[in-house]
Formats: sequence, structure tokens, C-alpha cells
Amino acid sequence: MNILYGQSGGPSSVINASAYGLINAALNREEINHIYVMKHGIKGALENNLYHIDEFKESLGLLENTPGSAFGSVRFKLSDYKTDETPYKKLLDVLKQYNIDYIFYNGGNDSMDTCLKIGTYFNDKNIPIKVMGIPKTIDNDLPETDHTPGFGSAAKFIINTVMQVAIDATIYPQGKVTIIEVMGRNAGWLTAASYFAKKQGFGPDLVYLPEVPVDINKLLDSVKDIYQTKQNCLIVVSEGIKDARGDLITNTTKNTDQFGHTQLGGVSYHLSHLIKKTLGLPTRAIELNTPQRSASYIRSKTDVKEAKMVGQKALDFALKGETNKMVTIKRLSNTPYQVAYETSHLKHIANKEAKIPKSMIDFKNNTMKQAFFDYLTPLISGEQKQQYKNGVQTFFKL
Amino acid sequence: MNILYGQSGGPSSVINASAYGLINAALNREEINHIYVMKHGIKGALENNLYHIDEFKESLGLLENTPGSAFGSVRFKLSDYKTDETPYKKLLDVLKQYNIDYIFYNGGNDSMDTCLKIGTYFNDKNIPIKVMGIPKTIDNDLPETDHTPGFGSAAKFIINTVMQVAIDATIYPQGKVTIIEVMGRNAGWLTAASYFAKKQGFGPDLVYLPEVPVDINKLLDSVKDIYQTKQNCLIVVSEGIKDARGDLITNTTKNTDQFGHTQLGGVSYHLSHLIKKTLGLPTRAIELNTPQRSASYIRSKTDVKEAKMVGQKALDFALKGETNKMVTIKRLSNTPYQVAYETSHLKHIANKEAKIPKSMIDFKNNTMKQAFFDYLTPLISGEQKQQYKNGVQTFFKL
Repeated sequence: MNILYGQSGGPSSVINASAYGLINAALNREEINHIYVMKHGIKGALENNLYHIDEFKESLGLLENTPGSAFGSVRFKLSDYKTDETPYKKLLDVLKQYNIDYIFYNGGNDSMDTCLKIGTYFNDKNIPIKVMGIPKTIDNDLPETDHTPGFGSAAKFIINTVMQVAIDATIYPQGKVTIIEVMGRNAGWLTAASYFAKKQGFGPDLVYLPEVPVDINKLLDSVKDIYQTKQNCLIVVSEGIKDARGDLITNTTKNTDQFGHTQLGGVSYHLSHLIKKTLGLPTRAIELNTPQRSASYIRSKTDVKEAKMVGQKALDFALKGETNKMVTIKRLSNTPYQVAYETSHLKHIANKEAKIPKSMIDFKNNTMKQAFFDYLTPLISGEQKQQYKNGVQTFFKL
Repeated sequence: MNILYGQSGGPSSVINASAYGLINAALNREEINHIYVMKHGIKGALENNLYHIDEFKESLGLLENTPGSAFGSVRFKLSDYKTDETPYKKLLDVLKQYNIDYIFYNGGNDSMDTCLKIGTYFNDKNIPIKVMGIPKTIDNDLPETDHTPGFGSAAKFIINTVMQVAIDATIYPQGKVTIIEVMGRNAGWLTAASYFAKKQGFGPDLVYLPEVPVDINKLLDSVKDIYQTKQNCLIVVSEGIKDARGDLITNTTKNTDQFGHTQLGGVSYHLSHLIKKTLGLPTRAIELNTPQRSASYIRSKTDVKEAKMVGQKALDFALKGETNKMVTIKRLSNTPYQVAYETSHLKHIANKEAKIPKSMIDFKNNTMKQAFFDYLTPLISGEQKQQYKNGVQTFFKL
């Protein structure tokens, strides 16, 4: 039996740990003959551009340490096969050429859409190739799973960075209004994590989530009040905050990607200019940018372990005959922290977004309820040891 | 005998390690009776706003782990005493009230100017209070010392972050022109460190230092060529780059601080817009911002050790009767890496900037010579272990 693995969508600091989990498990399975990897995800599969395990087997151990998508990623929207069967036929040609029995596709909401479309085509056409999704997204916005690999490490980076910035921003007698911009698209999980920094006494004064409509005038009033009292104000804001009408609060030109999502970013600069102009206060915009999804120097041990496990479990479930599913994590208990790995049908996941449940948000006091902190704590716990040589990390390279 | 310590200028991730080095050594010296610390540096000393060691003795051990300036910092330019003696008299009143015998002032170029002015006043007026500077700056731009505490950790953060961003930026078949902006004022030490990332195979395509005038048209041509070949281009640029006329390449409004320095930042956004407009390429600006000087989660072990040592040595030298000096680090050998601690008169240091020597820059090949890498390697080596609880760092708080 031959398997094919691919990475898709935005990277995380642990997606390669999932690749390692799957590939390492497959190497130890007698029934697996060849392991192939798509170059730039589905694009590579369509263009007959695959790596064979023999090309990188010797440095496989380094995958676990390496952020980004080691085999290349892609943002590519597959049309429905009923509209255009061409790419599906192309894909099938390649899969047949390599005698692929199982496809593993590692990604987030959009990647699971690709996965579902391929799986549906195989199913409808009675093609016996199986498809299994492996979850990945720092945004933590996949449904059906308690959380997603990548989230814990990104949240850990954000909390610790916000604490550091909070300390840095308050050293002068007269400070600035500092606005930190956090990723997460329409889900506020990563932004809400900054409340954890506040709990430690080094946190933001104000936090704005995409789940709660933002009233810009109220925001300006709050900033003014806080700055008057403290000569300092720290704001953490999600890239996806919206006003009461549902319009994004940002100054980006409205570029959209192939999935029709508006490319976000720029809200911290927008607010920075607005606060400077309206309130006349000194400001500093800090966009955490791609380091928040690639910071392999501060990763959650829990997250890295689970990232490897979802890869390994994907193989187990596939070999048991499951298809058109994604591996999910089910939380069994918080203390001690215990999880089980299950699967859910891709139709429940593709193109759906899991936002923070209202029950976790304390709207009245502009903070999060204890349930959120209980949820988050195990996910950021444990420090993953990283390999260094002469002060720099050792990374996998094809 | 009583001592007074103060922090000044921009913070680093190890300035509090210097505070720890000094205070801990002082606690173990019988001849020291009271240890005081200025709140917000010289401002606190002038306004009779001091902490006593008893206020934070119990959590002293946490200082070593904590970024920022734990006791508050200040940017304050002292006028010459011959022009205005008022602040000097104020200061003297406070010092007499607390029977201060030694002042230790921890900072960079501007802070050493403050230090020298106070020391000169005491000297000219035959006041027996001694003044000792403790070096600190991530910019590594202090003369008389081989390097400055804070630089090694910031360089380590930058190299590893640039590697991570480089990996992240090259995952898609068609990438962007990514511009990373690094601090350092007029010295390119931190920016040049990114060549170290390139040496690992995950580095920038182009690097621009303040020491080498930038020709914008050549820059645009290089970007165009590289993007055409690779569909990707990674640029690391210093906040202080200048054109051939010596004008800063930046879009900031020309705000100046009290020392007359133009407040930098914004060059990555400026270049990002320029490249998008002129070449029509997709761009991403990443300003590393204050995390580069506060990232306590990735610090050089060498740097933290030396930061503590300059604090400890400052006390030793002061108790031997030295005054109007700053502690300096002299490199004895690279392999094994060995240093000695000496002192140099403040008049050789105050208001002076140490840039990268021309002998370290390979102008022809737009890279650094081996001498630079030999210089840098020991400074970033060793991983400082950090204290975490439930996934977050444990910090000192007054």
C-alpha cells in the first residue's frame, strides 16, 4: 500500500510535527510500501510533483523542530467536480501512476473543503482511494474537535509576548498607547489568550475580539480614560474585529484570496493613526505577524505532542478503513489533562468556523470566564525543548 | 556605605540581570548598609523617588528572568552644570539625605552622558560620591567595550526569528516580498546578525545596513531580479538606513527625542509601499518592534551571564575607588571564549557610537566577513533556561 501526504493553508509551528507523526508511524507499518509527499499540497498532486520518502528519510527527525510547511503549502480552491471534472481526472491519473491508496491532507477549514471534495468524488465514482484530514490551524476555528494543533503554541507565544511587551511599554513615566494585533480571522481564540497575560499582572488594558462588535467611539473613550489614569494603555486586538454592522475595522485594501476571504491585517495601524489623530496621544502599533505562527523557539509541549499524535492516529484510522473523515481531539478531563483521538466526517468541518462560545465570554466585565482559562491552561503547558547549534535552531531542509 | 542604582534608556531582556548582579553582590558585602534604586532612573533621583531593597528583597531572584526595566527607565537629558546647576543641587540634596556613597547607572550612550555629567560635577566640586556606569544596549553601539550586554540575546532572537520567517515566507509557490525591520539606530550590528540566518540556509536575500549608503533604484532592481527568479524575496533592513546624501530612508514624521535623535521605525512599511507601487509585487512588512528587545523566552546564556557580571564587577571597581568609569568587556579569546572585565573613562563613551568596523563588512559580495561571524558566535551561544508556570513566564514585579 502507498500513501500520499500534503500540507495546505497557512503554516503553524507544529504542522511538520504532524507530518513526522504520520510518516514515522507509516515507516513502522509493514503494509506501507511507499510514502509520497505533495510539493505545495494539492497543486503538487495535480502537477505530478511529489517527493518520495527516500529523498528526506535521513533528516526526518528534524521535521519535528521545524516551523512552516516543510513540503510547501498552497491556497487552492478546487471547483466542484460536477462543474469541472478536469482537475479530478488529472489527480486520479497521478494517484494511479503512484498506486496511492490513502491521501492525508493536513490543514484548516479550507483544506478540509479540498479534502471533502476529493473524498466525495472518489465516493461517487466508486474509486477505492481513501481520504483523511489532519487538523492544523493556529486559529483554533475547526469545529468537531476540542482544539486544533498549532493553537496551543501560538497562544503560548502570544501570551508570553504580550507580557513582555506590557513590561517594555510601561518603563517610562509617560508611555504610549500600544496596540498589538493578533491573527485568528473571525475567531478570537488567540486574541482572548492575551487575557491570560492580564491574569499574571502583565496584560492588556483592553482586548477586542471578533466575536463582540466594536464601538469605535467607546473604544476611544476607554483609551482616553485609561491613558489619563496610567499614562499608558495596552490594547490587544484581533485582525478580524468588526463594527456593529459587521464591517471589518481595518485599513487594508480589500484584497481577497481564492476562498473569498478578505486578507486581514493592518487594524493595529488603523487604530494607531485614529488614536493619534483623535486623542492626540503617542501610539505604537505592533503587528505580531508571521512570527506568531512560526515561533518554534517557544512551543507548548502539549501541542507538539498532540500534533504528532493526530498524524499517527490519521494513519491508524485510515488503515482501519475510515475515509472522508478528519481526526479530532476529544477532551476527557482537565485535571489531569487527558484526551482521546476520534474522527468526524469532513462535511461537518469543511468551510465551517468554530468561534469562541458565548458561554466563555464575560461580556459585562470585558474579560473571559474561568471556563476559558481552564480550557486554555493545559494547551499552553509544558515547554518543548528545541535543538540549537551555536545559538541557532537546527531545521529540516529538503 | 550606601549605594544607589538606576536604569535608563531603552530596555533589554537582560538589564535586570545586571541589576541582579549588582544588588546580589552588594547584599553579600558587609561594608554596604543600604541599597536604593531610582524609580525611572535619574528622574526618580531628582524627585526623591527611590525604592529601598527591603521593598523587593524577597523576589530578587526573579529579576534575572525579567525583561524590560524593572525599576522604570527614563529618557532625560541633563543640562551642563555650568549652564544650570539646579538639577545637580537637587540631586545632591537627595543623595545626602540617603547618605549615598556610590551611584551605579545602567544604560547606553545617552545614559553614560548623564553619568559623565554627574561625575564631572562631583569631581569639580570635590564631592566624594562616586559614579560608575554599567553598560546596556541591544544596539551594541558603545565604544571601549568588545560588546554590550543585551546585544547577544537580541541578536539571537533576530537570527532565529528571521530563519522562522524565511521558512514561513517560502511555503507558497508564489510568495511575497517580505521586508523585516530591525532596530539598532545608526549601527547595523543587529541587522548584520541576520546574515547568520542566511549562513544556515534560511536567510534573507538582501540586507541593508546603516553603515552602507542605500541606492533605492539598485534596491528595487535587486528585488525585481530576485522575485523573478524565486517568486519570493526576503529583505532585512535596519531602521537607520540612509541614502547617499545621509538622509534616513523612512516615512516617519520627523519626531525627535530629548537627545535630538530622530525617532526611527517605519522603513519596512515605506519600502513595502514603494515596492508594491513601483514593481507591482505583493509585499509584507514585518517590524520586529519591541519584542526584539524584550524576548526573554529566547536569550543567550553568554549574554545573561555577562549582564550579571558587569553588575557585579561595577561594585568591585567602585569599592576599589574607581569613579567616572564604565565597566567594559574585553575579549581575550574566541575558542575557548574568554573575557575580562575592565573599566574605561566615561568621556571616551558618552554620546559616542560604535558602528560595525569596515573590516568586518564584505562590501563587494554584500555580506559579512568571517571575522564578524567569529565575533558573533560566542555572544549568541547557549540557551538561557527560563522559568515557566502553567506555560507562562514568571516575572519580577514591584
